[in-house]
Amino acid sequence: MSKNKATVFVRLKDGVLDPQGLTIEKAIKNMGYDMVNSVRSGRFFELELGGGENSKEKVTEICRKLLANPVIEKFEVDFDK
Amino acid sequence: MSKNKATVFVRLKDGVLDPQGLTIEKAIKNMGYDMVNSVRSGRFFELELGGGENSKEKVTEICRKLLANPVIEKFEVDFDK
Repeated sequence: MSKNKATVFVRLKDGVLDPQGLTIEKAIKNMGYDMVNSVRSGRFFELELGGGENSKEKVTEICRKLLANPVIEKFEVDFDK
Repeated sequence: MSKNKATVFVRLKDGVLDPQGLTIEKAIKNMGYDMVNSVRSGRFFELELGGGENSKEKVTEICRKLLANPVIEKFEVDFDK
């Protein structure tokens, strides 16, 4: 049985306000670090896959249905063995 | 002025319970996808850096002080230009 891993990165779409990122950006600046221009936040999920057919297609389906909100978020999947 | 980007990945340490990951894992299984063995969740932050000296050291400091909870989380920084 093959042991694969998929990492799903979920980001807000460009143009969607990211309050968490903005708050962190302000906090960083208040701490005196002036070299940080902007911060965007995101989530990721590491899926351990037990093999099987069409794993890639299925993971993409899972992202669309469960892990990302397609209205405001975009996702990206990295597959590695 | 150089334009660099740093991506900070924050994960729960091994052995620390990940309720969000477990909930997603159950949801995926309930949806009928049986090829997913486990799910771990994490957060990431994309920092746009305006250059300056010791950026790498400063970003590591920011992670330790603000972005990760060192008691239960570990972080990893990727720098790219």
